[in-house]
Order: sequence, then structure tokens, then C-alpha cells
Amino acid sequence: MNKKAVILLSGGLDSTTCLALAKEQGSELYALTVNYGQRHIFELEAAKKVALTIGVKKHSVINIDLAQFGGSALTDDIDVPKDRDESDMTDIPVTYVPARNTVLLSMALAWAETLGATDIYIGVNALDYSGYPDCRPEFIESFERTANLATKAGVDGKQFKIHTPLINLTKAEIVKKGMELGVNYGITTSCYDPFHNGDPCGHCDACTLRLKGFKEAGLKDPLNYQV
Amino acid sequence: MNKKAVILLSGGLDSTTCLALAKEQGSELYALTVNYGQRHIFELEAAKKVALTIGVKKHSVINIDLAQFGGSALTDDIDVPKDRDESDMTDIPVTYVPARNTVLLSMALAWAETLGATDIYIGVNALDYSGYPDCRPEFIESFERTANLATKAGVDGKQFKIHTPLINLTKAEIVKKGMELGVNYGITTSCYDPFHNGDPCGHCDACTLRLKGFKEAGLKDPLNYQV
Repeated sequence: MNKKAVILLSGGLDSTTCLALAKEQGSELYALTVNYGQRHIFELEAAKKVALTIGVKKHSVINIDLAQFGGSALTDDIDVPKDRDESDMTDIPVTYVPARNTVLLSMALAWAETLGATDIYIGVNALDYSGYPDCRPEFIESFERTANLATKAGVDGKQFKIHTPLINLTKAEIVKKGMELGVNYGITTSCYDPFHNGDPCGHCDACTLRLKGFKEAGLKDPLNYQV
Repeated sequence: MNKKAVILLSGGLDSTTCLALAKEQGSELYALTVNYGQRHIFELEAAKKVALTIGVKKHSVINIDLAQFGGSALTDDIDVPKDRDESDMTDIPVTYVPARNTVLLSMALAWAETLGATDIYIGVNALDYSGYPDCRPEFIESFERTANLATKAGVDGKQFKIHTPLINLTKAEIVKKGMELGVNYGITTSCYDPFHNGDPCGHCDACTLRLKGFKEAGLKDPLNYQV
């Protein structure tokens, strides 16, 4: 029997590749989408398509209304910045969602413990990223330690492991890896501020990094950029 | 101006006393109730009454459907154990909610960062408790470290502090402290399995510990026990 794993799945390029990698490693897949009051529903739709296409044992969608706390361009009424140079992205941008990965990982931990799973996958990336503090390896290591102190499973001697297979990859390497695994990036979505039909804006940080990744990989992004 | 603090408030004896202590320490109070699919609505009603009575700047209630993960007598269809000796409570019971305090603290962290607050209060107790791993000081310290690595505020040099003013108090000491501060325990609720009118069962771990606390403090619990 395959080992159960909980994989955080937003429906974007990174988490989709992460799910495909967990499958390659022989895990029984439990995909978890946390709907924390994002601006658009395309992420949720993409996550559902990805879970179905890659083939998961179960896909859970959990709603948390982080938007009521405010404070982010992704959940609040603040403009998403456009056409920033990559060098500007080292500053933490307004698209930062407070404590987002802590919230996501705590939900994944709750489900994992209930399932009797100890493997949790999150597609964070410390290279081509937007300067978010909760994408750094030291954060992941600290959360893992906390998880093992927090839980009955940890007390019983099981060890939770937070897997971050993308953490040291460039966006181009992530895209190449996903293509090798047969990922259909045409059903994913990365844009922070898509058009009404779901097409990506091509100008936000997420689009800029994604387009750069495909370009450097020598591949074409199947999404329909209106640029 | 008082310093903002986020206080986790379930509406039970411990979190209510914790809120009163944060008030005594001069904080501007932001009470956070996380409704994680508890069995009964009396907790939510009690939390609202407590927030109003003690006087908070804002009370947020956030819903997270942890019950869909299953695995606990508090969110699932499992019987709450009754009339256990205190010595049995060192085993982790079925009322344990997977990763509960990790989930609660991550939500408090998200709100605190949005508010620009660095003080978070949680009424955990390592003495008269039910054997939950996420009530231990080593868990709290590890979460605090994770919080400071997770956040923009942490990166910017602000330090989050997880306050646990009850952690080394007996239930009797907690009750005495609360009474000194004028807490009305008649509007709180602790029972895991109350009657339909909200009255406590008097036999679950929470009731057993609470009754023992009042008894040892030489005080009478104002709740209506049908025992």
C-alpha cells in the first residue's frame, strides 16, 4: 500500500508540479486546497481540475475567511502591482497574505494527523519567489519541529516531514520537471489579477515569474496571455 | 495608547480568565474565536457574552470546518468519555482535536500581523489539563519561533510573543485569579457534552477539572450542574 501524503494544492504552477512529484514518489495523494478568501475563483477551479487530472485519492477544500482580517492585495481591496522588475521582488509586496503558509501548513497538519499520514508537501520556492518570509527553508524547518511537538502523532514517536521538493529549483527547472512528468500546465492558474474569463494579466509578479520560467526552459506556456 | 493584543477566546473558563488578565495588563483587546466545527453552539454564545462583558475593541469569529477531517470526539460522532479519574487524563483522550492549538495560533498570528500587534494570548494550561501535547511550554516556544520566521513583522525585527499566563497555574489558582479580576464565570461554558439547554453534564473531563478547581479554591461554580 502506498504511503499517504497531504499535498497543499492551490492550482498554480508550483503546487501542481509538487503534486505530480509526490505522485512520482509513490504516495497516496490527499490534496488540500485552502480557500482563504482569494480574489478570484479561478484558483479553486484550477485546483479541482488538477486534482482530477493527476488523480488523487481525495481532494478537500476548506474555507477560511482570512479576508475579514484584511491587509493583503490578494484578499483585500488593494491594487496588485504590475510590471515590477525581478530585483524589486526582494521586498515583501502587498500581495503577501499574513501568516499564509503557517495557516496552510497547520490545516495540512490537522488533516494529516487525522489520516495517520506523516508526509506533507508544500510547493514553496526560495529562488524565483516574491520575497515572502514563509517560503524560506528556516521557516519550514521550524514549522516541522513545531508540528512534532504539537501532535499526538509526534508524541507517539511518529515524525512529521514537511517536503519542499521545489525549494531550491528555479522556475525554469520546475517547469522542465513538470513537463517530464506530463503535467498539463494549461489547466493551472498563477495570475494574481486575471481577466473576467480567467486569462492571466501577464503583468503581475506571478505572471512575470511564470513567463520567465517558461522562456528560460525554452518552452511555451499554454495559457492565453493577452499581451 | 494601549498596546494591541490578540486573545484566543473559546468562551471557556481558561480563555475567559486569560482575556481578563490581558485587560489587567493594559492591552487593547482583540478577541478571536475560531469556530472549528465544535459540537455545540453554546461555546460561541459564551464567547460573545464574555467579549461584550469584559469589553473588547473587536471580537472576530472565524469559521473553519475541521470537522470534515474527522478524528475527534469534539468534532466527530464519537462519544465523549465520562467520569474519568484525573490520573487517566494523562493519556491523550478522544476529545483531542488534531493540531488544534497550531490552527488556533496560526489564525491569531494572521490577525495580529494585520493589526500590527505582536502580543498573542492563549489560555493553555500544563498542570490541570487533559494530556493534550499542544498545551506544553515546548510547543508554545516552538510556535513562537516559527511565527517570527513566518512573518513580514518577524523579518522586520518585531518580535511576536505568545503569552500563556495560565500555563503554570492550577485550575483553583485560575479560578481565584479570575474572581479577583471580577470575572463572571456564570456566562462561560466548559462542558464537552452539555444538555440541550446548555447546562453542563458534570461528568466529562472539562467538567471534572472545572468542578475540582472551584472546590479547591473554596468557591462555588455559578453554572447549573444537574448532578
